[in-house]
Amino acid sequence: MNRTYIANAQPGQRVRISGFLENIRNKRSMAFLVLRDITGKMQITVVKDENPEIAGKIDILTLDTVVTITGEVVTNPHVKLNGVEILPESLCIESVADALPIQDDSGIDHKMDYRWIDLRSERNQLIFKVQTCIAQSFRQTMLSENFLEIHTPKLINTASESGSDVFALDYFGGQAYLAQSPQFYKQMAMASGFERVFECGPVFRAEKSYTNRHATEFTGFDIEMSYIDSYHDVMLMQEKMMHGMLSFINKKYCVEIKRLFNVDITVPQTPFPVMKLEDVYDELNTRYGYVALDGEQSDLTTEAEQLCERLARDIFNHEFLFVTHYGAEKRAFYHMRDENGIPLGYDLIWKGVEITTGAQREHRYGQLEKQAQEKGLSADVEHYLEFFKYGCPPHGGFGMGLDRITMLALNIAIKEVMFLFRGPNRLTP
Amino acid sequence: MNRTYIANAQPGQRVRISGFLENIRNKRSMAFLVLRDITGKMQITVVKDENPEIAGKIDILTLDTVVTITGEVVTNPHVKLNGVEILPESLCIESVADALPIQDDSGIDHKMDYRWIDLRSERNQLIFKVQTCIAQSFRQTMLSENFLEIHTPKLINTASESGSDVFALDYFGGQAYLAQSPQFYKQMAMASGFERVFECGPVFRAEKSYTNRHATEFTGFDIEMSYIDSYHDVMLMQEKMMHGMLSFINKKYCVEIKRLFNVDITVPQTPFPVMKLEDVYDELNTRYGYVALDGEQSDLTTEAEQLCERLARDIFNHEFLFVTHYGAEKRAFYHMRDENGIPLGYDLIWKGVEITTGAQREHRYGQLEKQAQEKGLSADVEHYLEFFKYGCPPHGGFGMGLDRITMLALNIAIKEVMFLFRGPNRLTP
Repeated sequence: MNRTYIANAQPGQRVRISGFLENIRNKRSMAFLVLRDITGKMQITVVKDENPEIAGKIDILTLDTVVTITGEVVTNPHVKLNGVEILPESLCIESVADALPIQDDSGIDHKMDYRWIDLRSERNQLIFKVQTCIAQSFRQTMLSENFLEIHTPKLINTASESGSDVFALDYFGGQAYLAQSPQFYKQMAMASGFERVFECGPVFRAEKSYTNRHATEFTGFDIEMSYIDSYHDVMLMQEKMMHGMLSFINKKYCVEIKRLFNVDITVPQTPFPVMKLEDVYDELNTRYGYVALDGEQSDLTTEAEQLCERLARDIFNHEFLFVTHYGAEKRAFYHMRDENGIPLGYDLIWKGVEITTGAQREHRYGQLEKQAQEKGLSADVEHYLEFFKYGCPPHGGFGMGLDRITMLALNIAIKEVMFLFRGPNRLTP
Repeated sequence: MNRTYIANAQPGQRVRISGFLENIRNKRSMAFLVLRDITGKMQITVVKDENPEIAGKIDILTLDTVVTITGEVVTNPHVKLNGVEILPESLCIESVADALPIQDDSGIDHKMDYRWIDLRSERNQLIFKVQTCIAQSFRQTMLSENFLEIHTPKLINTASESGSDVFALDYFGGQAYLAQSPQFYKQMAMASGFERVFECGPVFRAEKSYTNRHATEFTGFDIEMSYIDSYHDVMLMQEKMMHGMLSFINKKYCVEIKRLFNVDITVPQTPFPVMKLEDVYDELNTRYGYVALDGEQSDLTTEAEQLCERLARDIFNHEFLFVTHYGAEKRAFYHMRDENGIPLGYDLIWKGVEITTGAQREHRYGQLEKQAQEKGLSADVEHYLEFFKYGCPPHGGFGMGLDRITMLALNIAIKEVMFLFRGPNRLTP
């Protein structure tokens, strides 16, 4: 008999189901088990007299032991779990569980030590169902827009953008680094005439940061596109991607997300609102009395970023806000600038958190070299500059973290959202 | 005016096209340019007298300079390139190319130094169009079969399967390693009740190997699935995946693949043929007089692997061959074994090259620990063994290299198929 998902087991059917034992009530003449698989939970009711063989196995069952059960699904209004139960014909023990080392109320670090057990809950599994949708939706948007998928090397010979915060390793007697982003290589694909590319892969940051937003390794989603007229084309693509993603999640999981995370998924209106950085600060001052310190106004301060959630809601009734016209000193050297030196790029803020930096890139060799020199980077980026010497289309793109998007969608911490979190103090399991 | 892909530019239309200049014939009164974008090529015919502004720019054009042209598409039977040309109204130089440092007949290593230029050819771009399809098709098969996508860490605290061939790095004063495969973590997902997972991501091998098949970093495609009845369920899934992938490529690119690689894409019949290793050796001996040395017959020798192409064709008229019943000493300790000690797994051979090892895994803690001990690995895999202590479903899976699949589909070398090849002597660009 083929296995049936618990969610698909209907009264009247004879089924075979498999899963973890979530609950065991062992009475003298009866035993009640709750079995959990990836789709749901089912009560198994054992009448011991009628099932001596099964009854004989009940005593060795422990919580989270994995079993396979065959039997008939019957309705029973006394069963709290959906009013159905299975009367088993057979019970096969696949794997007996030792006493579980973590409980629901264990601390987060202790839970992370036993992350594989922590991930068994319906709630935690939903995180990865949602994340699967996010990545799927991102790619679907890109593929429908003629993007090619690339896989750029993570082993590189110079630190990606700056020497700090980069992991170094021995490479056959020489030195290699782990890529902090596929930025340079996705731009290389533009110089290769690939025109539109995306990549979903790990990025590495040797940051000694202990915030709830940063990890030393996470999954980045990057795109780059040629022949744009301005960075507004990049914003449009991002908007399309975010809209598609939230529509997809909403359609597929809004009920479960509400039930398990108490979060409403809002499908955003398009176009997303756009404000200049200067105007953001003006409004934050006028509306909420917030003023950034002198010298901080060329970038969004953390506090201003958080206030953008309120601002976007109050002015536009929106969760998203594109912010443009940052100061050049706070932006990467490869962002193209207008005739006044203003970078032609943006940040996208979602629920008060920056999720993306996007920009048109400087593709003109001479100008790019000059901007690298200004930031004191010309030696570090010598190889990168080569990409622009032999013809390169105008282009732009953005990058964002898959984990951060999942975190914001479900309103939880980054440690919860990563399959296995990696931080300065965390390299296991 | 929005940009038009060259392949979509129809006679009678006024269009804006952008791309690299592939050819420049500059005559006294006329100039003929060939412009190439990701979809095709187009001749631009400049009548100098009628276009003094454009004519003035022709002299500074170089091969692979990027330009944007607006003009009318007209039919002209004298034009070899599809019988159409564009009579330009404007020509905008986006980026002037220096004299190209590589030519069609440059050596492969020299070409790799300038890989971004090498990738501009129609042929090389087709490789990545095909690879995009392969990854898309793999994921589509998995998603339609209820698999979740996971992103396992590449930074790990112990060498994945053995201490050799692993890159080590400093991790905040401690030691970390780069994952050689997501094997242990995709199995962890089984212990987490994720039931079915896939991952597409980089894997790292510090192998000092100079063959045409190995790279120090490549893209792996891995799956793992719970509640299988045997490894035949894994083989069925793989067969479905390969069949879907080749159907998709065939539908989308068979004509271009034939034209540019002279390769016929064969959509394989299902089920794929299956042979026991012992029977493979018997047939190789009987049919082709091939005999492996004593002690080599518990695995496929390289020569035997190559001969499997002929064998699969001669016996089954098929490109694929599943080989089962390998010797336990040649298989990983985590492969489940039958009552005679035979590993319950397989290799899949395509065109005489092993593309996958798949197996049912040993999920029973005691047995797994014993098999690890036999291989002298118990200390190295201590953390991994923990995954099986607290309940774990029976499961199996496989892994394969995206680059190797692309290489075999197009019948080219691994160095050609990777966006940026990484080997012991190659860490740039």
